[in-house]
Amino acid sequence: MPPLILITNDDGYQSRGLHQLVAIASELGEVVVMAPEHNSSGLSTSITCTRPMRVHSTKGPSGIEYHYCDGTPADCVKMGIEYFCPRPPDLVLSGINYGSNASINIAYSGTMGAVLEACLDGCQSIGFSLLNHSPEADFEAASSFIRHIIDSVLHHPLPDYTALNVNIPRLDASQIKGIRVCRQARASWVDSLEKRIDPIGRPYWWMTGKFVCDNPGEDSDEYALANGYISVVPVSPDFTNHSAINILKHLES
Amino acid sequence: MPPLILITNDDGYQSRGLHQLVAIASELGEVVVMAPEHNSSGLSTSITCTRPMRVHSTKGPSGIEYHYCDGTPADCVKMGIEYFCPRPPDLVLSGINYGSNASINIAYSGTMGAVLEACLDGCQSIGFSLLNHSPEADFEAASSFIRHIIDSVLHHPLPDYTALNVNIPRLDASQIKGIRVCRQARASWVDSLEKRIDPIGRPYWWMTGKFVCDNPGEDSDEYALANGYISVVPVSPDFTNHSAINILKHLES
Repeated sequence: MPPLILITNDDGYQSRGLHQLVAIASELGEVVVMAPEHNSSGLSTSITCTRPMRVHSTKGPSGIEYHYCDGTPADCVKMGIEYFCPRPPDLVLSGINYGSNASINIAYSGTMGAVLEACLDGCQSIGFSLLNHSPEADFEAASSFIRHIIDSVLHHPLPDYTALNVNIPRLDASQIKGIRVCRQARASWVDSLEKRIDPIGRPYWWMTGKFVCDNPGEDSDEYALANGYISVVPVSPDFTNHSAINILKHLES
Repeated sequence: MPPLILITNDDGYQSRGLHQLVAIASELGEVVVMAPEHNSSGLSTSITCTRPMRVHSTKGPSGIEYHYCDGTPADCVKMGIEYFCPRPPDLVLSGINYGSNASINIAYSGTMGAVLEACLDGCQSIGFSLLNHSPEADFEAASSFIRHIIDSVLHHPLPDYTALNVNIPRLDASQIKGIRVCRQARASWVDSLEKRIDPIGRPYWWMTGKFVCDNPGEDSDEYALANGYISVVPVSPDFTNHSAINILKHLES
């Protein structure tokens, strides 16, 4: 039986990045698609608790059935596994996202929220993001690398409680130097909110901001990407800073 | 100058849990409140990218000014720090939440999304949650412990890139045995989505589920809570599984 691959994203079921990931994965296994109905950028691992959800289906450009749901990317993973996969998936993929989810962007990413949800659900999972927000983004340039990573994970399971955050530089296929396994770079978003005044004099705020990563470190994802490599960060939904437990024993009473 | 404490939550600015946290923190420093306008449970570290946000202000029950915003808990932290704090806050608090954010619930929690956002913004931060969803939840029982934790963090800064996830058992003050510093327990939510049929025969799904944590381990938050202790987990917005980096070097090309 071929491996079963559940695919979602956060840009919505009509995204070209999703179509490209479906095309690659279809060569490696049986594909089930369950993607958000709407753009779900910035939704992190959020779930929909306050209203019911609906699911619809259509045909994707490759002829594969696409299910789509009016929930978040993490909802899509739960929904896909529990109701739309004929058996537990061997792998969950998310993407290909328009724009970086490297460094601290993972904290906000719906693409990676889906990946972390899959990991919490006991599935192998990988998120793919391309450092290009343009509608003309070239999702094919890195196809051979993406195929290599998926194929490798299908044959060599990831470490326990671990998923992959894969980011792809905005380069032609011939310019991509290879793949580097890295840590998440430390960085910050500054000036995140822009205050404006509406036509009747009342303030409102838009999310914006500048990404600042001055010293990414040679072992980080930002360094790899800046130097022409695809970055692969092993990530975990265990938020514990284990090394801090003993340091904080003075809090006990 | 007294320490400046920014307070938010995910249950919204009218929550009794917020009022209680404001009352405790007001004894220890100068308080700024910026909370979500609406219940934001399950919103994780999500941010609002697709529409502008508004802010309003009112007086809380203690007479302190409450700002509230129609964004997420993480939005509230960014908004509070950038526009409503007179200087960078010395501490960001979130809660007191109705219901547990221990174990893997941190991944979905808006309360802890605010805390992780504050950590990404370079602030000391703590989230407080009470294991009680009832409208009559007793937020005062653990007040002396909450005061102790806040006071301790104000005097002894947390380790680098680390915040605290504090969960409080549903017990009378006299029954709480103390505080334990722990790791996040591994667990899972099963049967997360309940399928129903609407009056005209179409399916819809509600988020629900059963929390399963069979072997929490004596060093975990779930074990501490089940044994009458307040759990304190040091958490970090670094998602990297550092020990997996070398194991995955075979992916490089």
